[in-house]
Amino acid sequence: MESENNMVELRKHPLLDCWVILNSERAKRPGSTKFPSIAKSGGSCPFCEGNEAITPPEVFVLRKEGLANGKGWRVRVVPNKFAMLQNGEKAETLSDGFYQSMQGIGKHEVVIETPLHDKELHDLEVASVAEVIFAFRERFRELKKSPGIKYVQLFKNYGLMGGGSLEHPHSQIVALPLVPKSAREEESAAKIFFDNNGTCLFCDMIRLEQGEAKRVVFENDRFLVFCPFAPRYAFETWIIPKSHASHFEEMDEADKDQLADAFKKVLMKIQNVLGNAAYNFVICTAPVQEAGKAHYHWRMEILPISSPIGGFERGTGFFVNSVSPENAAEILKEG
Amino acid sequence: MESENNMVELRKHPLLDCWVILNSERAKRPGSTKFPSIAKSGGSCPFCEGNEAITPPEVFVLRKEGLANGKGWRVRVVPNKFAMLQNGEKAETLSDGFYQSMQGIGKHEVVIETPLHDKELHDLEVASVAEVIFAFRERFRELKKSPGIKYVQLFKNYGLMGGGSLEHPHSQIVALPLVPKSAREEESAAKIFFDNNGTCLFCDMIRLEQGEAKRVVFENDRFLVFCPFAPRYAFETWIIPKSHASHFEEMDEADKDQLADAFKKVLMKIQNVLGNAAYNFVICTAPVQEAGKAHYHWRMEILPISSPIGGFERGTGFFVNSVSPENAAEILKEG
Repeated sequence: MESENNMVELRKHPLLDCWVILNSERAKRPGSTKFPSIAKSGGSCPFCEGNEAITPPEVFVLRKEGLANGKGWRVRVVPNKFAMLQNGEKAETLSDGFYQSMQGIGKHEVVIETPLHDKELHDLEVASVAEVIFAFRERFRELKKSPGIKYVQLFKNYGLMGGGSLEHPHSQIVALPLVPKSAREEESAAKIFFDNNGTCLFCDMIRLEQGEAKRVVFENDRFLVFCPFAPRYAFETWIIPKSHASHFEEMDEADKDQLADAFKKVLMKIQNVLGNAAYNFVICTAPVQEAGKAHYHWRMEILPISSPIGGFERGTGFFVNSVSPENAAEILKEG
Repeated sequence: MESENNMVELRKHPLLDCWVILNSERAKRPGSTKFPSIAKSGGSCPFCEGNEAITPPEVFVLRKEGLANGKGWRVRVVPNKFAMLQNGEKAETLSDGFYQSMQGIGKHEVVIETPLHDKELHDLEVASVAEVIFAFRERFRELKKSPGIKYVQLFKNYGLMGGGSLEHPHSQIVALPLVPKSAREEESAAKIFFDNNGTCLFCDMIRLEQGEAKRVVFENDRFLVFCPFAPRYAFETWIIPKSHASHFEEMDEADKDQLADAFKKVLMKIQNVLGNAAYNFVICTAPVQEAGKAHYHWRMEILPISSPIGGFERGTGFFVNSVSPENAAEILKEG
């Protein structure tokens, strides 16, 4: 970790009524801001080529050869065997007059990013990363056909500290019967901004970040990669389309290839700099049943994990981070 | 973990526009809902009796003998050497026209719960737990004298998975220059409930939980202990005063002793059932500069940690839990 002058500053997340305490002194604590390395243990794996029978049948596949649910695939999407949510009809909200509940209806799928157990997403060729992104987009398009699905959350848990329980490279897709808290909050903040300013908050942010340049890690024709002003996590990095677009799944072929280029570069940089660290990535996008929005703009967040969430974060909904985004961007740019 | 019929249900947190997916099937995943045991590594410790010179000077102490910052104490509160926030005057909000920031002004203190490295909070006698709670209350009362302090967040990080970096039993207090996200959200939900119903949401919840009894773990004269309807974490447990009170620091002597009784019992039960698990506890209370509120009601949350937060929780602000509160309460009642 590079040193920087001691800075203690609170910064407001522009979307989430959430403040981040940036404090470089905290990096001096024993054991702080270590990014534990991922080690693979091997052993039998349900996601490896040849073990297709162990998973539920595939719902999407890119294959070079072979039959459905056999060998010869490049990217494979299957229902999660331990799904968070169940198949079913429309979820109704129930109330006992005080508490509210809802049937746990929805979908939970696993995107197996490669047949190779020992490759990681960041090791793949850009063309293979583009195929993974293609699979993501196709699943969004398919899942939104079900009118009961209000939101599709795509994420990856890499490494134990990132919540990962299986080693084989995979991402997850959860199709939910309601729009989650974070998406609602983001949209509401973005709507207020739009109503006040007549512009998309994210489009303005892109212009500002490009102008200031100090938090920019990389950009190609269609995507900007930068460390956000109020990063909740050390080395938090966002990838955002430079042209306005509210829905991830409306991405075209060129977007997909450019996103693959940016995504692969950033993952490589993060792994180079942080030494095979655990991370999550999440796609923040508009609710799938709602039409294109002038005030919302999708993005991908990459969230490296240096330490578990503690009582401060759980109690307040605020975060503490010892690496400023200006410092992180400088390190990642060179990494 | 006791088995229960497979249940997949979404439940809404009554305060935090946050839904929890309750799914007992998820407990069957490899490695899920394990509560890793805490092991102590020993070695030199800044919080042990005899090492008082290593910490900043104490700001509060309960002693049986000896001089300030020497041996002979029972509970000791010191500024955190690696404080999240700095001393200073009133924090001003700054804006560059787009982003907002604020000077990182506030206090961060450590409550050393016992001079004994190898005791845990749940091992202490009830009278000693009452002294720890007394220290908490006194620090709230002192910290709120500074008008720049808008909120006091008390929490404990027990075990590495709970974000704990030092083994010696301690809690932490952060005095913030603004009211955190979670407290604002809770209060806003509670205010709406009060405006609609003319009653305190929490008082109604207490009556309902006592009536239904199925989520109650324990109660004494002044406190109810129960597993909340929409627990974000397996075995999440709340301790709440049965009489209406918005501010933790307004607790009287009898409250303090009864809270110590309830707190010690619950911590013991959790440790008995989960095998020395990592946990956080947090106090959710009203902002310290604001007068008593008819619509808000303080409580303590105990949050055992079975696995790290993953991309789903980070992306959505929702949670997945494989143990229902009804099941958890039954197990804890007997534990």
